[in-house]
Amino acid sequence: MNPKIRKAEYAVRGELAIRSEKLKVDLANGASHPFERVVGCNIGNPQALEQKPITFFRQVASLVEYPDLLKDENAELTSKLYASDAIARAKLLLKHIGSVGAYSHSQGIPQIRENVARFISERDGYPADPSMIFLTQGASAGVQLTLQMIVEHSNVGIMIPIPQYPLYTATLAVLDAQPVPYYLDESKGWGLTTEELQRAYDEAAQDGIETRALVIINPGNPTGQCLSDENMCEIIRFCQKNKVILLADEVYQTNIYEPEQRPFHSFKKILKSMGPEFEGLELISFHSVSKGMIGECGRRGGYFECEGLCPTVLEQIYKISSISLCPNVQGQIMVDLMVNPPKKGDPSYLQYKQEYDAIYFSLIKRAKKLEETFNSLEGCTCNSADGAMYLFPHIRLPKKAIAAAKEAGKFPDQFYCMAMLEATGVCMVAGSGFGQVEGTAHFRSTFLPQPEFFDDFCTGIKDFHASFMNKYRD
Amino acid sequence: MNPKIRKAEYAVRGELAIRSEKLKVDLANGASHPFERVVGCNIGNPQALEQKPITFFRQVASLVEYPDLLKDENAELTSKLYASDAIARAKLLLKHIGSVGAYSHSQGIPQIRENVARFISERDGYPADPSMIFLTQGASAGVQLTLQMIVEHSNVGIMIPIPQYPLYTATLAVLDAQPVPYYLDESKGWGLTTEELQRAYDEAAQDGIETRALVIINPGNPTGQCLSDENMCEIIRFCQKNKVILLADEVYQTNIYEPEQRPFHSFKKILKSMGPEFEGLELISFHSVSKGMIGECGRRGGYFECEGLCPTVLEQIYKISSISLCPNVQGQIMVDLMVNPPKKGDPSYLQYKQEYDAIYFSLIKRAKKLEETFNSLEGCTCNSADGAMYLFPHIRLPKKAIAAAKEAGKFPDQFYCMAMLEATGVCMVAGSGFGQVEGTAHFRSTFLPQPEFFDDFCTGIKDFHASFMNKYRD
Repeated sequence: MNPKIRKAEYAVRGELAIRSEKLKVDLANGASHPFERVVGCNIGNPQALEQKPITFFRQVASLVEYPDLLKDENAELTSKLYASDAIARAKLLLKHIGSVGAYSHSQGIPQIRENVARFISERDGYPADPSMIFLTQGASAGVQLTLQMIVEHSNVGIMIPIPQYPLYTATLAVLDAQPVPYYLDESKGWGLTTEELQRAYDEAAQDGIETRALVIINPGNPTGQCLSDENMCEIIRFCQKNKVILLADEVYQTNIYEPEQRPFHSFKKILKSMGPEFEGLELISFHSVSKGMIGECGRRGGYFECEGLCPTVLEQIYKISSISLCPNVQGQIMVDLMVNPPKKGDPSYLQYKQEYDAIYFSLIKRAKKLEETFNSLEGCTCNSADGAMYLFPHIRLPKKAIAAAKEAGKFPDQFYCMAMLEATGVCMVAGSGFGQVEGTAHFRSTFLPQPEFFDDFCTGIKDFHASFMNKYRD
Repeated sequence: MNPKIRKAEYAVRGELAIRSEKLKVDLANGASHPFERVVGCNIGNPQALEQKPITFFRQVASLVEYPDLLKDENAELTSKLYASDAIARAKLLLKHIGSVGAYSHSQGIPQIRENVARFISERDGYPADPSMIFLTQGASAGVQLTLQMIVEHSNVGIMIPIPQYPLYTATLAVLDAQPVPYYLDESKGWGLTTEELQRAYDEAAQDGIETRALVIINPGNPTGQCLSDENMCEIIRFCQKNKVILLADEVYQTNIYEPEQRPFHSFKKILKSMGPEFEGLELISFHSVSKGMIGECGRRGGYFECEGLCPTVLEQIYKISSISLCPNVQGQIMVDLMVNPPKKGDPSYLQYKQEYDAIYFSLIKRAKKLEETFNSLEGCTCNSADGAMYLFPHIRLPKKAIAAAKEAGKFPDQFYCMAMLEATGVCMVAGSGFGQVEGTAHFRSTFLPQPEFFDDFCTGIKDFHASFMNKYRD
């Protein structure tokens, strides 16, 4: 068997997640545990925790599945169940697509790519070109494809943040490429400096590694920080100077919780604002329907936009996309809906806005509440989330706990998370799965559990932590 | 850029397909061409050629998208638009799944895997285990994942038929592995002999290649043959003797046009029937919702079943699947519907059966008609299709045409297909994209164009061929 596959690690669905699945089945079969439900905070999967989908999006998706609903003889009944703008959108999509059961263009349905380009140009104030946009089966597939394109041999380095989302290290392991880690500064709200980028780059160069790309996750995962414009300009200058491709993972671009102090700006926008000197920079930006207030994870939809790539490279991206034929069409449709939601005055606008805002404001509230919970725990500190769906608290574990972890053959943070899962049914992911400064311990938790029992969820964590500390306190 | 990607070729969506897309756009913009429509026979994409989807399947898909339809207050309206068994199935699926917008289990939704296992055991008469089944985003994704698992280093060989479906050579190019070609015998209806398998294996061994797996496409693509049980037993013995994994691409298992003489039997069934001596053989079988009478290509749904694989390998397959999180949930649902369609007595059964049979018998008719057309062409011979969706005629081109092709920098079969596309709007794929005996020329065509103008389609080919031959006849 391919040894590179053995090397890959993906903690988000690793040992803790597998154990939590087992507990779920046990509970369903009537087994007795100290908790009534398993709460999956290991993964940003809002609808698994009962976040309601956006009605307009689902109405369109439902209509395109069963075009008979759009026939004249069903018009009256259909109009009682579906909003008129959902019906109009479904008709328009089917006009372009034909059938959701047909393979589409390998790069994605042309009219949807046009809508994505329009969305980007309205968001950024700079033009976007549909021929530079590739629809994908979620952002993960786009990242995997892009890294595969870039990694020429096993000495190629890709700069990744630490902590990082483990898709990156896992994909690099499978491709047999070199992760070049740069560290985010926890003491400065998970800040990123170009000095640290240059240190990482230079050290890799000394080791003979040819660094080709820099991954930036903004807003950060698992760390939740949102970059300032100045910081982004510095990063772009760093890429230009060192001739590296910038890979901008911007899937959390609408999960922004401090919009005044920390608004989201895309790297595309910042790059364009810096003038012709930076024209040649190669930038690939990723987006997804799985996050934001949409949370359509099971759909597997997303896109990436290329900037500064030469036509021969684009041709190769098309070819490699075509081997897998096309992204699933419903995922493409959800991208269309994400970039082109109901507008003011549309029949569905009010409901859309209400649903969207309810999720948004509830996320802000839950993020705050969980941050306070973590900061109230003995030995625990937690930066606030400017964005994304996660908190990444730093936990200082007693020596006795560290010794017990060692005995159990686990990292201390894994040991802590497993104890929490067994005691509370809450599944988080140990910081070792994301990378962290050596000798520190963290864990990642989403703040997605349902509002109606979020308080209980926080209390459960507090109680567990107190009893864990009582057991292991030095 | 990764040079392995440059090396990969995928003719099904290559130069001819790209040109046909361009012609389609031209026509839509009012350009004048010698034809009124572009007919994509380059790819098995039935719904792009207006094959109607199965109503029951689409009703269920539509209902799970918009669960409000299942609420009590909408029951009356919904029951007027949807069949009662579709409503019941949608409720059952949602009970298991929660939401189509949530990431599922990385291996696929457990209850759907149970249904797949039941389907396999009913089809074969031997038990199947849901834990050995992985749902995928179409069979292509399963094949890519499996090959990635097997290819340990660049000296690993994978046996592939010639002609083959180019997914295999493309994936092996990207993985930097060695295709070990074995030839199908056109003069014996694209027959396969173990002598030829052994010749290919031994020659590869002499070149220092470590052959690890044998790909069999049954029914064949692009060749349409269906293996006999005796032949399958021989193949299994070959795999056992040479310790290679058997990869059985069985996506056309229901596209069987000579069910009396050439029924489909799965490799799983034949293997099991051979007794305990062959217990240890490693077999991975692929299936898809894109083919058969379902033709839900845009859905990206499929599965593979593992047989004889050790638990540590299965764990690694799970891990690598989990990095991409999960197959799209609507694709998984279509797998559920494929393996568990309406049964006799169910409210939707009659309509399902009628729709299914209409497609099936029409495919048989069109396959026959196109075969006759090809065999009527000067210099052209064509084996009949026992199964699948394609014909792969052998065409003997005049020397003048070969010289003209050379001048144009094309293979003779590419030159022929391009001339056909420009003259008729019909897009086929040149045999060189699939591999063929050196010095021969073929092309692959689906027989999927709409029944109502299939006769015109055949006449167009005949007319084109006659004028091509008149132009280039020696």
